[in-house]
Amino acid sequence: VKILVVNCNTTESMTEKIVAGAREHASPGTEILGLTPQWGVESAEGWYDSYISAAAVMHAIQQQDPTSYDAIVMAGFGEHGREGVREIVDVPVVDITEAAAHFACLLGRRYGVVTTLDRTTGLIEDSLTLAGVGAHCVGALGTGLPVLDLEEAKLTSAFTATARKLLACGADVLILGCAGMTGMAETLSEKLEVPVIDGVGAAVQLAESLVRLGISTSRRGYPHPLHKRRTWH
Amino acid sequence: VKILVVNCNTTESMTEKIVAGAREHASPGTEILGLTPQWGVESAEGWYDSYISAAAVMHAIQQQDPTSYDAIVMAGFGEHGREGVREIVDVPVVDITEAAAHFACLLGRRYGVVTTLDRTTGLIEDSLTLAGVGAHCVGALGTGLPVLDLEEAKLTSAFTATARKLLACGADVLILGCAGMTGMAETLSEKLEVPVIDGVGAAVQLAESLVRLGISTSRRGYPHPLHKRRTWH
Amino acid sequence: VKILVVNCNTTESMTEKIVAGAREHASPGTEILGLTPQWGVESAEGWYDSYISAAAVMHAIQQQDPTSYDAIVMAGFGEHGREGVREIVDVPVVDITEAAAHFACLLGRRYGVVTTLDRTTGLIEDSLTLAGVGAHCVGALGTGLPVLDLEEAKLTSAFTATARKLLACGADVLILGCAGMTGMAETLSEKLEVPVIDGVGAAVQLAESLVRLGISTSRRGYPHPLHKRRTWH
Amino acid sequence: VKILVVNCNTTESMTEKIVAGAREHASPGTEILGLTPQWGVESAEGWYDSYISAAAVMHAIQQQDPTSYDAIVMAGFGEHGREGVREIVDVPVVDITEAAAHFACLLGRRYGVVTTLDRTTGLIEDSLTLAGVGAHCVGALGTGLPVLDLEEAKLTSAFTATARKLLACGADVLILGCAGMTGMAETLSEKLEVPVIDGVGAAVQLAESLVRLGISTSRRGYPHPLHKRRTWH
Amino acid sequence: VKILVVNCNTTESMTEKIVAGAREHASPGTEILGLTPQWGVESAEGWYDSYISAAAVMHAIQQQDPTSYDAIVMAGFGEHGREGVREIVDVPVVDITEAAAHFACLLGRRYGVVTTLDRTTGLIEDSLTLAGVGAHCVGALGTGLPVLDLEEAKLTSAFTATARKLLACGADVLILGCAGMTGMAETLSEKLEVPVIDGVGAAVQLAESLVRLGISTSRRGYPHPLHKRRTWH
Amino acid sequence: VKILVVNCNTTESMTEKIVAGAREHASPGTEILGLTPQWGVESAEGWYDSYISAAAVMHAIQQQDPTSYDAIVMAGFGEHGREGVREIVDVPVVDITEAAAHFACLLGRRYGVVTTLDRTTGLIEDSLTLAGVGAHCVGALGTGLPVLDLEEAKLTSAFTATARKLLACGADVLILGCAGMTGMAETLSEKLEVPVIDGVGAAVQLAESLVRLGISTSRRGYPHPLHKRRTWH
Repeated sequence: VKILVVNCNTTESMTEKIVAGAREHASPGTEILGLTPQWGVESAEGWYDSYISAAAVMHAIQQQDPTSYDAIVMAGFGEHGREGVREIVDVPVVDITEAAAHFACLLGRRYGVVTTLDRTTGLIEDSLTLAGVGAHCVGALGTGLPVLDLEEAKLTSAFTATARKLLACGADVLILGCAGMTGMAETLSEKLEVPVIDGVGAAVQLAESLVRLGISTSRRGYPHPLHKRRTWH
Repeated sequence: VKILVVNCNTTESMTEKIVAGAREHASPGTEILGLTPQWGVESAEGWYDSYISAAAVMHAIQQQDPTSYDAIVMAGFGEHGREGVREIVDVPVVDITEAAAHFACLLGRRYGVVTTLDRTTGLIEDSLTLAGVGAHCVGALGTGLPVLDLEEAKLTSAFTATARKLLACGADVLILGCAGMTGMAETLSEKLEVPVIDGVGAAVQLAESLVRLGISTSRRGYPHPLHKRRTWH
Repeated sequence: VKILVVNCNTTESMTEKIVAGAREHASPGTEILGLTPQWGVESAEGWYDSYISAAAVMHAIQQQDPTSYDAIVMAGFGEHGREGVREIVDVPVVDITEAAAHFACLLGRRYGVVTTLDRTTGLIEDSLTLAGVGAHCVGALGTGLPVLDLEEAKLTSAFTATARKLLACGADVLILGCAGMTGMAETLSEKLEVPVIDGVGAAVQLAESLVRLGISTSRRGYPHPLHKRRTWH
Repeated sequence: VKILVVNCNTTESMTEKIVAGAREHASPGTEILGLTPQWGVESAEGWYDSYISAAAVMHAIQQQDPTSYDAIVMAGFGEHGREGVREIVDVPVVDITEAAAHFACLLGRRYGVVTTLDRTTGLIEDSLTLAGVGAHCVGALGTGLPVLDLEEAKLTSAFTATARKLLACGADVLILGCAGMTGMAETLSEKLEVPVIDGVGAAVQLAESLVRLGISTSRRGYPHPLHKRRTWH
Repeated sequence: VKILVVNCNTTESMTEKIVAGAREHASPGTEILGLTPQWGVESAEGWYDSYISAAAVMHAIQQQDPTSYDAIVMAGFGEHGREGVREIVDVPVVDITEAAAHFACLLGRRYGVVTTLDRTTGLIEDSLTLAGVGAHCVGALGTGLPVLDLEEAKLTSAFTATARKLLACGADVLILGCAGMTGMAETLSEKLEVPVIDGVGAAVQLAESLVRLGISTSRRGYPHPLHKRRTWH
Repeated sequence: VKILVVNCNTTESMTEKIVAGAREHASPGTEILGLTPQWGVESAEGWYDSYISAAAVMHAIQQQDPTSYDAIVMAGFGEHGREGVREIVDVPVVDITEAAAHFACLLGRRYGVVTTLDRTTGLIEDSLTLAGVGAHCVGALGTGLPVLDLEEAKLTSAFTATARKLLACGADVLILGCAGMTGMAETLSEKLEVPVIDGVGAAVQLAESLVRLGISTSRRGYPHPLHKRRTWH
């Protein structure tokens, strides 16, 4: 199984980190292909960034040979674009936001999301609602750390403090609310004594499963784009 | 009051139609400025189109002199982008989707949306939900007519047939579910004997009101984008 | 445009204050006509008061020459009656509760209401729910100040303290939860650094807009009252 | 136990019918006292009627000696006023709308309401929502028969036809949606082979129970009205 | 009226306590029959216990002569089984969880549940949701006291402390969240100055009412079990 | 990875069918172990059956050596028990109902469930709600075929007819609403031209993924059962 993991931003080092995280969570035999958009935002933090990212990610995916991958993982937590990608490719598309929530629902009664800046929490909550998995979310909270400054020690301490607020609100499962946090789940889970879910790993697993089950996007729900004139900047 | 009315697609004739509709519904003294994105989609029909449109519209707005308008009307029914534009400008931003729904709630108990192709109904319902005005919507239904083929006689007949299904579901107010339907509200309202709302007119009126009241977007809700590297295709 | 602004209580000085607030927010050329019910409650604070007020307001409106106004603004925050008035007049009817919420949804993601006594918060939340704009409300909280004791300095301090609780719950827009608070929005907005909405101004603007757009209440939703025997005390 | 059963309209013959229905469903030893408002509407069919009714009913109750009854049943299906009465009396207050729904939830998974005119269905659905028992309601539908024309044969046939639509929507319990339908439950239940609930009987039973349990309205939720000037027409 | 009150656990002393509570709240002439399952859990605290309890309770009921009772009260707060019992008996079935909530909705705007261990709050919230009365619940909170250790002084103090948190969240009515708390409502209500509802008493009253009204479970909603092979351990 | 797939009923031939379905959808190297409860119901069709099944399944699982499996799949569509099993084992537990819905959300906007008898649709809808994935479900409908009579030709025809009703309600993905339908997804998907999801395959994939990710049930959400006296019939 070949999975194309698409970063939502243009920061190559972040794509590398995400690809490493994806590989760590992939099954033996699964091949992870990283993709960094050629244009867009160096990090996505807010709606303006997110809509640029959505367009850039769709554009980047269309440059790829569609026979080179069996599924797509969209690695932007809370970012837009997933339904658009479902329209343009025939393989399964899994977004890390929804993926993390799907697993969270299997492990506890209520989950919470710890993310980077407060300004992104609205995007995340909306994304979960539209994915159909918002009912058990007690909220998304920011740590105050920007996407490009998720240094491990700082993150551990900020994540833990924020997580405790969500636990007090009834969460019994937590989600890493940024692709850049990949790799931190185990440490944080031990510290907080609840499952902590890494959306990158979750999405890779779901993508593999959809390929194995031989099912993909409903064309009734997401028909292919119509033929028409479209131009890029 | 100067209102920048932004078409969501690149079709100039549609911008002209929307600007004409906006002028028809503007108060005396209000100036309507039309804006057509320089790139993007010739019509927005689905998620792929909508995300490209969101990026193109934001880009187009950033090319404008911010002192040349007092408010922005986003004239894409069900299209993405409104929260992103709220982050980048200081003036009020009103999207025609939400605008139509706000007025619909003032006139009846439940409303319905008649739009172009079935493939866009999901976008519209999601947009209304996220705008906070989805509770009284009984549904969005397509007429089967594409955005660029809304010829008046055909539209009247298709709209009427579709509208009756929504009335049977409890709607007592209807909404024109495409910017390109602007100008048709009065005729259809007489035929169907319920109020029919034109989102373009509704948004122009709300934008004027916000300017007159001297209130604009909450920076706590939609902070300005952070300084960072962003590139366009 | 002539707008009949109806106070929900019998206190003439409050009608004057509301009329002044309405005039301040009206467009040039709009005429504001105040109406004080001849009977009813000196202030509406709770359900008992609110139902008396609803009847008194409907009665007062029926005494007016229907050709003397183009729209009605109901100036009781959270008070009953709006759907009944929609049944009896042909012009648009806008209630200040819903009006404030409609604008709040355009300016932020979540809003909160700061009102007078705690005993009125239930009425307000119910009113927002039934108006179809409750989804983005994080709550209504009381300042402890009664309707007839909204002295400016005291109100500023009490409003600010209560507002901070709503901001902590996620509100990014605030609403003045009493017609008697009209005129305070600007000061409070500066202090709290979020938009603060005055329902009186909001309703006047929406009423003007509906008149300009030439649309009014759906008779399918709110049919005229049937002919029958009705008697007043 | 003495229960004051208050008609929502001024039609004495309807009060008599309701009192008879209440007596039929009361426990041995319970005394039913009928009350017809001295002013108001001869039947309540819509919001205008309902708000007049609410004021008239509250006024009528205040004329009664509060020591003469142990509980109040409000016998207007879907009509306003229940929270106001809770503020002014110390005994339990049960409205027939909510009462019917409480029993419906105990007997099936989903219930429907068959009422008089279509114009009252909105009031009923709102009343159920605000009473906290709307979740299992599949809808309220009108038979087309007005409140004062519920002749038995006509009603049986119209009720049955309307009920079948609600059963097709998933209802497995039905509610008589007008106080004037009292006494018809058994016949209709046999015909339709599902439980049919009479709100008058349901409310009498709940009122008796609250008296026996010695619990009454929360003053924290519904404080007594404040002392102030109130005048009636 | 003969009411079979079924304990959800195998602890005889608890059945006695529940029967005593039921008798205290029953109307004159009502006969209370206690039933303790012959197998199952000595107390139900969590899902594992609750599912065993559901099977044991259904089994115990099937051993009884169906002509010996007129209604069933299921006395396990938040425990499973009520829909299954509705399938197997022809008389009305009332569960103490839903019963308490039905009365709570009649007395205030929002209610809260104070229960034993935190591990049972999820069960209670789910049970209220599925019973159709969850909308007005602000939450269920545990006191930390196990079911078999509800000594009066300890319970009073723990209940009071926990209740105050629910009042701060908007509750104006409280519910005793365990059958073993029966008999404590009056004392706690005086202390907390809000109505406190005993589910055992509430269910007995509702069961009596259903018998008096002559209505029972909808067979359309809960058909009798099909004939098939079933074996018990 | 060793997965214990537990049938909800005592019919061995059905366990064999389910195990075959599970093997078909398992990854290479995954071992499927079937488990048939020693007592219980020969098929689960309704609440009575479902609660017996829950107890029998939990009992059967406790007889197994916990070191002999790495995850549990509960193969009863809409049946109770999943939270109880989460309390008693340390490995991940996935129920086929929720599993199918999780994948459905990834493939379309709205899904529907086609099941056996109408009497089980309520159980299924409740199960989806409590699993946190009910928001996108347009409904569950029965084919009229009992669990033990799912002969292929009959099922194909009945499934197709029922499915079309769900597609008309907006579903764009369908779910096989009974473990006994396993193996039919591909054929039905081709016929209906939308993805059809087999809960058995879905659950096996999710269980494998949870094992690979090294995450399991939250003990904060589902603590181990307390030590106490429990007896079985």
